[in-house]
Amino acid sequence: MLNFEYWNPVKMIFGKGQIAKLSAEIPKNRRILMIYGGGSIKKNEVYDQVKTALKDYTVLEFGGIEPNPHYETLMKAVEMVKAEKIDFLLAVGGGSVLDGTKFIAMGACCEGDPWDIWTRKTSMNQAISLASVLTLPATGSEMNCGSVVTKFETREKLGFGHPLLFPQFSILDPETTYSLPPQQTANGIIDAFVHVVEQYITPEVNSPLQDRIAEGILLTLIEEGPKALQDPTNYDVRANIMWCATMALNGVFNVGMPEDWEMHLIGHELTAKFNLDHGVTLAIVLPALWHKRKELKRKKLLKYAERVWGIHKGDAGIDKAIEKTREFFESLGVKTYLSDYDIDKSVIPELADRLMRHKNSMMQNRDEVTLESTKIILEDCI
Amino acid sequence: MLNFEYWNPVKMIFGKGQIAKLSAEIPKNRRILMIYGGGSIKKNEVYDQVKTALKDYTVLEFGGIEPNPHYETLMKAVEMVKAEKIDFLLAVGGGSVLDGTKFIAMGACCEGDPWDIWTRKTSMNQAISLASVLTLPATGSEMNCGSVVTKFETREKLGFGHPLLFPQFSILDPETTYSLPPQQTANGIIDAFVHVVEQYITPEVNSPLQDRIAEGILLTLIEEGPKALQDPTNYDVRANIMWCATMALNGVFNVGMPEDWEMHLIGHELTAKFNLDHGVTLAIVLPALWHKRKELKRKKLLKYAERVWGIHKGDAGIDKAIEKTREFFESLGVKTYLSDYDIDKSVIPELADRLMRHKNSMMQNRDEVTLESTKIILEDCI
Repeated sequence: MLNFEYWNPVKMIFGKGQIAKLSAEIPKNRRILMIYGGGSIKKNEVYDQVKTALKDYTVLEFGGIEPNPHYETLMKAVEMVKAEKIDFLLAVGGGSVLDGTKFIAMGACCEGDPWDIWTRKTSMNQAISLASVLTLPATGSEMNCGSVVTKFETREKLGFGHPLLFPQFSILDPETTYSLPPQQTANGIIDAFVHVVEQYITPEVNSPLQDRIAEGILLTLIEEGPKALQDPTNYDVRANIMWCATMALNGVFNVGMPEDWEMHLIGHELTAKFNLDHGVTLAIVLPALWHKRKELKRKKLLKYAERVWGIHKGDAGIDKAIEKTREFFESLGVKTYLSDYDIDKSVIPELADRLMRHKNSMMQNRDEVTLESTKIILEDCI
Repeated sequence: MLNFEYWNPVKMIFGKGQIAKLSAEIPKNRRILMIYGGGSIKKNEVYDQVKTALKDYTVLEFGGIEPNPHYETLMKAVEMVKAEKIDFLLAVGGGSVLDGTKFIAMGACCEGDPWDIWTRKTSMNQAISLASVLTLPATGSEMNCGSVVTKFETREKLGFGHPLLFPQFSILDPETTYSLPPQQTANGIIDAFVHVVEQYITPEVNSPLQDRIAEGILLTLIEEGPKALQDPTNYDVRANIMWCATMALNGVFNVGMPEDWEMHLIGHELTAKFNLDHGVTLAIVLPALWHKRKELKRKKLLKYAERVWGIHKGDAGIDKAIEKTREFFESLGVKTYLSDYDIDKSVIPELADRLMRHKNSMMQNRDEVTLESTKIILEDCI
């Protein structure tokens, strides 16, 4: 096991009816900006529940955060926070709303252009307090201090993180996920699944408990995922998926282990260029990437084949396990080849070049990530 | 899954050489009381490492915290904290030192007799800041806000907890556990094991991820435990056991699940009366208690038999799994019958009576805990 530090101060409030607890968690005198996305929260009553719980506060609103939240949109919210002297941000929505809110929290306290955070041209030592009401299990952003934001103008999608960006609390009511479209449910399951493997299918460091927790999340997603599509108002199924997604990226299970994130980085380039859903890009990249990195990840892929898929065939089992993983993604209704989305190999050189430019942002295995290997992976994605 | 709230703000600093980080974690102007036990930290260099790391602070010392820390001893430390205007407590040792430090932290800010906390005659709204350097993986006290203290005069052993008693940080260096006597290593493994089952072998509430994490901790303890006795300076083995013990009682895996703690409560009575090691009492009580509570815990015991011991024999497998558990404890060198410790059935009435008096303190399944059933369990322990 590697040395590690772990600290996660987010208070999690989980279950039916918990949105009503909002007012117990936010100091009374705060000026709140409620931040949300395309308005689905107005259809599924979450908006009303939040407004009712906060009836004794001054609450301003900023709607319209898009999937893969745009820097350009978020900067408008930053201006609003400054102008209106907002001192508490409440994200109500999924990972994009949460990630965007983290950017706003940081951007409103930042001297220079907040986009420069990731290149370290601007540093960060203050942020507006934030919290969340999560309505889409996927990114884990509700219990971590990371964020991914896209600059629409340049089609760049980049990640950053800071302990000041931990939500003070997050409320997770599985009933708010009943009305999710199947595609979003599927994307969220795949996102959580890939968060786990980016931290688990890495070099072996003798961390058996961490491995077993990772496998526990994967097995639960494999069991519960299809049920969520068949029976979308099954409370326990929705609750189990929601908790898996949080645990997949709250830093608990991967302590003392190396990380990877190569799938995410390639996926981010695909989203930035083609606007493909994040979960879709991961489902496309995973099989191709594992084929290319099989030798490097061999010990963990063997464990994965055996414990997650019950395949005890040695090295031959690895290919079988990769195929089972692809089948699982497809069973959720997500196509796993770029050609399924009318994307052909002509784009590979540009995508690989862009990845080389961005590869220093959050990737820990960057030595293996070469122009050549990236092209091979992308070719296998077609 | 049940509704839950989860909040755990303890910063964990884990690994070789991490004690040197102490001074980065404690504000410079603090007057520190370093609290420890019988002096083993002076033999294994931990004492020197701590003193070196804190050379720029005012550090007073309070040694001699006994196993199952005594109220009577702790009250002397409370007086010292008040007289010396101590404003930071550093526990250096195992769970007893940590639990004792929590009692001192609370007792030094308390108007009445701090012992009255558990009967709610005294309330608690302030505590001295505390942190720990853990040297014995067992109780999980390094990452939770609970404590168990014994009043020697009346032979009462009672638990309490409060969010103010979370350590600010805990440093866990597995190398500090190399010199543990085998009996303490074994007791710690059993304590962690039983912490897990008190939360996992409870009524089924459809919490598959939580169940798998519980099983992951148990499987890891079963694998790594015997290795620690055979090869006490194996870093990875010690690290894995240390992290299992923390995860067994930091509140992460059991969110949304019912708890039990009947084994602990019976064990506490045995320790208070006969001064048996805490881990020993749990190893004695577990088989007997599961036999008595088999029907109530049937679903989870079936899962336990299958997933932890690979026994797929339906109800017949439960008895087999209980026997395997007893064999595991015995393989660690811990005898699992009261008669092994020269205790006979004549004490049962008194023990059962005492349990009835204390059963409201931390037990959630108290409806099932009757005088009659307690006597049956104790008889089966002989």
